[in-house]
Amino acid sequence: MTRIKFDEMKATIKMAFLHAGMPDEKAEICAQMHTESSRDGVYSHGLNRVERFVEYIGKGWVDVHAEPTPELNLGALEIYNGNMGPGILNAIFAMNRATEIAEKNGLGLVSLNNTTHWMRGGAYGWLAAEKGYIGICWTNTESCMPAWGAKSCGIGNNPFIMAVPRKEGHIVLDMAMSQYSYGKLQVTRLKNQKLPYPGGFDQNGTLTDDPGAIEETRRILPMGFWKGSGFAVLLDILSALLSGGLTTAGIDKFEKGSCGSCNQVFIAVNPLKINTQDLIDKALSETIAQLKSSVPAKENGEIFYPGEQSLKNRNENMELGIPVDDTIWAKVKELAKLN
Amino acid sequence: MTRIKFDEMKATIKMAFLHAGMPDEKAEICAQMHTESSRDGVYSHGLNRVERFVEYIGKGWVDVHAEPTPELNLGALEIYNGNMGPGILNAIFAMNRATEIAEKNGLGLVSLNNTTHWMRGGAYGWLAAEKGYIGICWTNTESCMPAWGAKSCGIGNNPFIMAVPRKEGHIVLDMAMSQYSYGKLQVTRLKNQKLPYPGGFDQNGTLTDDPGAIEETRRILPMGFWKGSGFAVLLDILSALLSGGLTTAGIDKFEKGSCGSCNQVFIAVNPLKINTQDLIDKALSETIAQLKSSVPAKENGEIFYPGEQSLKNRNENMELGIPVDDTIWAKVKELAKLN
Repeated sequence: MTRIKFDEMKATIKMAFLHAGMPDEKAEICAQMHTESSRDGVYSHGLNRVERFVEYIGKGWVDVHAEPTPELNLGALEIYNGNMGPGILNAIFAMNRATEIAEKNGLGLVSLNNTTHWMRGGAYGWLAAEKGYIGICWTNTESCMPAWGAKSCGIGNNPFIMAVPRKEGHIVLDMAMSQYSYGKLQVTRLKNQKLPYPGGFDQNGTLTDDPGAIEETRRILPMGFWKGSGFAVLLDILSALLSGGLTTAGIDKFEKGSCGSCNQVFIAVNPLKINTQDLIDKALSETIAQLKSSVPAKENGEIFYPGEQSLKNRNENMELGIPVDDTIWAKVKELAKLN
Repeated sequence: MTRIKFDEMKATIKMAFLHAGMPDEKAEICAQMHTESSRDGVYSHGLNRVERFVEYIGKGWVDVHAEPTPELNLGALEIYNGNMGPGILNAIFAMNRATEIAEKNGLGLVSLNNTTHWMRGGAYGWLAAEKGYIGICWTNTESCMPAWGAKSCGIGNNPFIMAVPRKEGHIVLDMAMSQYSYGKLQVTRLKNQKLPYPGGFDQNGTLTDDPGAIEETRRILPMGFWKGSGFAVLLDILSALLSGGLTTAGIDKFEKGSCGSCNQVFIAVNPLKINTQDLIDKALSETIAQLKSSVPAKENGEIFYPGEQSLKNRNENMELGIPVDDTIWAKVKELAKLN
């Protein structure tokens, strides 16, 4: 396994984005975010996603020059049109703006319509937490999963993020509505392994842990069966109604790539407006302590809080370099005109 | 199976609450809500919960005279102390107040600390939707589920609700973080049936669909395995930090019954401040149409939108009467001094 240092990866991705026509400052920020995703172990939306992003720019599905423009201001809730600009830049803007509104009103909600793929949703939770804010955000997507009771795709996997700032490591939940991503199915199949728990249905409609069988039917499992299916429907409708944008059904018809003209919702609250730092520390430390002192299911097992493993990946990858797939790394270097 | 008419059930529950010392107006509202839960098919938190609520009043764990009092007003976010009053009344107040704030600020968030069990969480989603608002709410609870990777209980099942108003039937998601409730395990075991899908772990740590084996270990499964576990942790921390109240770990130590001094969060938005009614209708109808036109997994199967089955139960139970367990019905009549 090849490992690449953070700075080298970031510089290479930035070159690729510059060659694709992105202005310098924007390429810098997007390269930083893609590299951070890989650094934190979210390989699917970091380096591995660079080629597709460049392809979308080439097809005109992402407008590298577009900026979000205000559409509606209701006080604590503001709506912006993403103008099909780079999803990462629009989302950073929106979460930052939500924190500004929260300073004035106790909480702030910013929604984006007509935006594009934000890559790793968790990034905006980490961003809010790093600034000292509770952050909640979600996106809708095109259809990629059957609703509960269906075998054809009809709902998105609509990632949902909640983040809480904490000195010793932020607590960040970043979950899509499918139990596993297609990326996870592929990786597991290539290793000739089974999924740790059932992840979808095979040709006979039986729940299976065989990743290849699920890739064939494309009947990936909503997390929690009917629960994740229903949650996906509500996240979709809410993102559309809170932004005045397209539903998953609308995105399916729009056909400008994954998440083309999707909507996102960003909510921020400053917990220090409600609690003293001591009270916050107490709430967080007693919760983490309760998790950590649970009896492990497996001997010597460890119970992790949400976000803990990202931090472990981050520390390891900053020290040793970020693992890359050699083919993908070569491709990105090619896009950066370094090969 | 005995079926009881709505009005008779409500009058009987009200009598039970009056005899427990509740003022008339409060007994009226609580009886209405318990009866509506049974009417909608949420039997566990309707008639079946009356005895335990009366018991809590008797123990001083619920103060029937307490009213919520304001603690902090940040503009779009307000915090109230529930003063250990009846959870239903506090929650109705809070969701209504959130809709009022939303009228002024675009969105409103009301949190309650030091409140008590709100019974059926979905009720407050239906309430918001009935008034024309998008509603989001959740509660934390005492520990009742092992975190992912643990075999001892350390996290709550923290029900989470999202609701959207819709002329033909509101879209309402009402889900706890456990895949199944203990009520569902019990009912399934008594019928000598298996769960439709695995719902927890047996003595050997193996995932099982045998409800009795799960009741023995108390290792109920978080929905979506690690996902529901992480979501439960975040809902707990957020409800505590947004209200200045107790975490699940704190509730565990407080020991005033299920959800004694828990916190709840209520968020409301008026979608008509953002969209025309036509745009809302289009978003909802295309989403429902996409669900309904999916290819069913089973021949002649039907795909339901969240809330649809509650509405079916409601219509059936209003026509035929609400099914009751004879022993429970007799007990409530006894509390009402009608037996």
